[in-house]
Amino acid sequence: MNALIDHRLRRSWTAEAADAARLPARAAKWLDQRIGPAAPGAAPAAGMPVEIPSPKLGESALAALSEVVGRENVLVDDAARLARATGLSYLDLLRRRSPGVDFPVPDAVVLPADPGEVQAVLDVCVRHDIGVVPFGGGTSVVGGVSALRGEKAAVIVLDLVRLDALVSVDAESRIAVLQAGVRGPEAERLLGEHGLTLGHVPQSFERATIGGFAATRSAGQASSGYGRFEDMVTGVRLATPRGEWKLGVAPASAAGPDLRQLAVGSEGTLGVITEVALRVRPAPPVRRYEGYALPGWAAGAAAVRDLAQNHALADVTRLSDGDETEVSLALNAGFKTAALRRYLAARGVRRPCFLIVGWEGAAHDVALRRRETTRRLKAAGAVRVGKALGESWRHGRFAGPRQRDALLDQGVCVETLETAAYWSNVDELRDDVRAALTASLGRAIIMCHISHAYETGASLYFTVLTARDQADPIGQWQRAKAAACEAISGLGTISHHHAVGVDHAPYLAAEIGSLGVAVLRAAKSAVDPTGILNPGKLI
Amino acid sequence: MNALIDHRLRRSWTAEAADAARLPARAAKWLDQRIGPAAPGAAPAAGMPVEIPSPKLGESALAALSEVVGRENVLVDDAARLARATGLSYLDLLRRRSPGVDFPVPDAVVLPADPGEVQAVLDVCVRHDIGVVPFGGGTSVVGGVSALRGEKAAVIVLDLVRLDALVSVDAESRIAVLQAGVRGPEAERLLGEHGLTLGHVPQSFERATIGGFAATRSAGQASSGYGRFEDMVTGVRLATPRGEWKLGVAPASAAGPDLRQLAVGSEGTLGVITEVALRVRPAPPVRRYEGYALPGWAAGAAAVRDLAQNHALADVTRLSDGDETEVSLALNAGFKTAALRRYLAARGVRRPCFLIVGWEGAAHDVALRRRETTRRLKAAGAVRVGKALGESWRHGRFAGPRQRDALLDQGVCVETLETAAYWSNVDELRDDVRAALTASLGRAIIMCHISHAYETGASLYFTVLTARDQADPIGQWQRAKAAACEAISGLGTISHHHAVGVDHAPYLAAEIGSLGVAVLRAAKSAVDPTGILNPGKLI
Repeated sequence: MNALIDHRLRRSWTAEAADAARLPARAAKWLDQRIGPAAPGAAPAAGMPVEIPSPKLGESALAALSEVVGRENVLVDDAARLARATGLSYLDLLRRRSPGVDFPVPDAVVLPADPGEVQAVLDVCVRHDIGVVPFGGGTSVVGGVSALRGEKAAVIVLDLVRLDALVSVDAESRIAVLQAGVRGPEAERLLGEHGLTLGHVPQSFERATIGGFAATRSAGQASSGYGRFEDMVTGVRLATPRGEWKLGVAPASAAGPDLRQLAVGSEGTLGVITEVALRVRPAPPVRRYEGYALPGWAAGAAAVRDLAQNHALADVTRLSDGDETEVSLALNAGFKTAALRRYLAARGVRRPCFLIVGWEGAAHDVALRRRETTRRLKAAGAVRVGKALGESWRHGRFAGPRQRDALLDQGVCVETLETAAYWSNVDELRDDVRAALTASLGRAIIMCHISHAYETGASLYFTVLTARDQADPIGQWQRAKAAACEAISGLGTISHHHAVGVDHAPYLAAEIGSLGVAVLRAAKSAVDPTGILNPGKLI
Repeated sequence: MNALIDHRLRRSWTAEAADAARLPARAAKWLDQRIGPAAPGAAPAAGMPVEIPSPKLGESALAALSEVVGRENVLVDDAARLARATGLSYLDLLRRRSPGVDFPVPDAVVLPADPGEVQAVLDVCVRHDIGVVPFGGGTSVVGGVSALRGEKAAVIVLDLVRLDALVSVDAESRIAVLQAGVRGPEAERLLGEHGLTLGHVPQSFERATIGGFAATRSAGQASSGYGRFEDMVTGVRLATPRGEWKLGVAPASAAGPDLRQLAVGSEGTLGVITEVALRVRPAPPVRRYEGYALPGWAAGAAAVRDLAQNHALADVTRLSDGDETEVSLALNAGFKTAALRRYLAARGVRRPCFLIVGWEGAAHDVALRRRETTRRLKAAGAVRVGKALGESWRHGRFAGPRQRDALLDQGVCVETLETAAYWSNVDELRDDVRAALTASLGRAIIMCHISHAYETGASLYFTVLTARDQADPIGQWQRAKAAACEAISGLGTISHHHAVGVDHAPYLAAEIGSLGVAVLRAAKSAVDPTGILNPGKLI
């Protein structure tokens, strides 16, 4: 079990990992020019912080939980409880670097082996009135796994890491059932043995889990081709305080509201997702990624819209704005920057916006689809940059979280936020969010990209870097984030990628109405009458 | 207003309309051979049946309703109330042909002009504790618009026919907002003025409404290309007893469960849908429909599955089984049957299953997609029959309801039922439903087709013809329908096209679990605490 705990400890928690992801000197110098000098903050705590609250679970509750999962799967030691106390937002990381422990710590970590044990643990928690925080990869950046206890005297983290099986494969229907604790790479390995793929690759892919993807309506980098995670879900099995709940008997139905779409995105508040039936596809024999440069944001967004509205989206379609492109050009060693700038300028692209397009599938299919995408891109004024740009992006696409740790070490405030809107609102929304962040933060690098395009609109994903306010680093970001959320609310969704958790909960009523919140509360009361499930999240 | 009422009277209600849709002699003779002699039942009632219950609405309620919509838009005369008392299922039609009135009749018909009036009518109904049945085209075949009153002393039909406007068009985002009472053809006419189309063409297209499509999760004949109606819905506006509720700020969101998918399919139980924001597309300059013959059901279903799992579905993809194909061959005068049989047999297709494929769009796009579809079809052993078959289907595709009236006149029991299942269940489900219907009905024609294919499964749509049991025609179909539902339950969804209404309500718990029903009830309590909305439907 120790190996398991070690594996789950945050990288940002150990000095070794921070070493491994140190910023190159070139990048540090460039950052210094752009956002001004940033002073490194306190070094990561080398050992265990002091004053960890002692577990509040009574003996009878501990005994009942141990009876279900075995004593060795009820962890009450400080390291295990700390490791699953928060997610991975910038504020989570900041707090973990602060001298004390100013985040909630669970009273125990419980590791059930299968859906039956999950149900039995919930039954114990109902009897003992214990809060339950479902925990997969722990990669939430919105406080979704914060060990809040609400009105409960005690709270456990229900770590689903042992629910790690591929349950079944229906090759004819192209459906695989995976348990909730299976991580992204393991899901692909298990499916790969059957010649299949899920194709869901969010930036959290390396650590996040099937259950987490479903609970948060995750969107992967290839969702233009493979669909958002909710598009893949054909069925879901949940444990709830009122018993097991299974949904999904057909690919589509007119038998009332689609309750799968209520379970998906419920963020642990309506049940603990234990298994998910997923639409899978043959593992693609061909993957082809390449880069284009568009002459400016307006032309780039129009080109992506043209693809989305004409059956011509590549599986991966990712448009960077001018600032994000400039950062790529400044930092990326994967191509000769000066020569590329001259090449593009000679073709009329003086303020380039990079577009990554990637196709996956059978050779014939990829060739057919690529031809149509590139035909439309060229008509839109895109200049081909080549495979190197595409492959460079593909190889670095999970590095963000690691780079973030290195930036934190350098005293940089670095965070992402995201939204989606209908096409007619996309430009205004991007402008408003940039203006709100700039007004709040002052000198900052604000990058933006579209990574998910639809016929009716697109997502906008912002990455923000600024010098950390040493006096009030938490307040600095809280104010900037609030300003961005205010700018988003009304023009777009408060989250397209990251879910609601704690951080976005104040903005939910503006999006779904007070009646929407009332409906969610009522649904929760029906399955969780005593409110043990993920207190303080979503609603 | 009289013209309006006349327009809404059921075709099957008048002897003239039955004349207009009389069966050709050839078809009558063929039917006689296949299902045995059927004796025509009682002639349709020439005038108004006797003993229509008098309206139960009190004077103060009538006055309050009249104050909202105007006295002329509160109808209490027998004709108006009878015309909106039921939908169009076989049992509805049978009951309307019976000498008495053995179906519930509403106490008034109220015709609000806009979403504000709908809200104000609901407020009156809450105050006076009056049940409300939302009514669009009145084409429900599952009792969805039956004027049940549940525990209420009085019930009104809220006819949305006056909510007939195209509210707005966002051409850039390809979104149009239509009011709930707009019928299919009118929606296409209004959108056509902007060069747009919705592309939603269920068999009920000529009469059904935007609100009804959304309330029932309607699936159109071209849903392989245009999507099911819920796929088109980007936003929805509802009137509820607790006030207005608006949903849908972005094409996709991770901000909790997708409540649009709770409103869509809610069948008037969670609110009255007053406006729907819909993804629209450019009106297609090219429409190309053609027919193929596949060598048997197994080969046909495999071919459709291949298309669905390889980005190669045509916009319309409709596979008939052998029996349905035989009926087409026997009755369709659109092509030379004997010559066609010889042609197909010479190419190894002795028991043909017809496949209709249709593409709509720009010429370049249609050509590209058609090439890929037909390439795969040929590889699957399909033999091209030609455009005549496709066009013949397209021109006759809304005729079913009219033909049904003629068949009823001939003493035939004729009804449809439908489901959807994952591919690995499709064959077993078809066999089981056929066996259940045959066991219940004896000598019968049972036709089946796939009209909606997905990567993970397909719909199955059955049409049943048998000689009507003169002694107990209602019981005859009730028993057959129950047998079919039992066969479906567990293998597929209880409805893929037709919704739940009254008829499928007993099977809903088996599909979504008792917890699912509890969640729907809780959601209803949150928006409709006194239970005035569409009593007795869905849950």
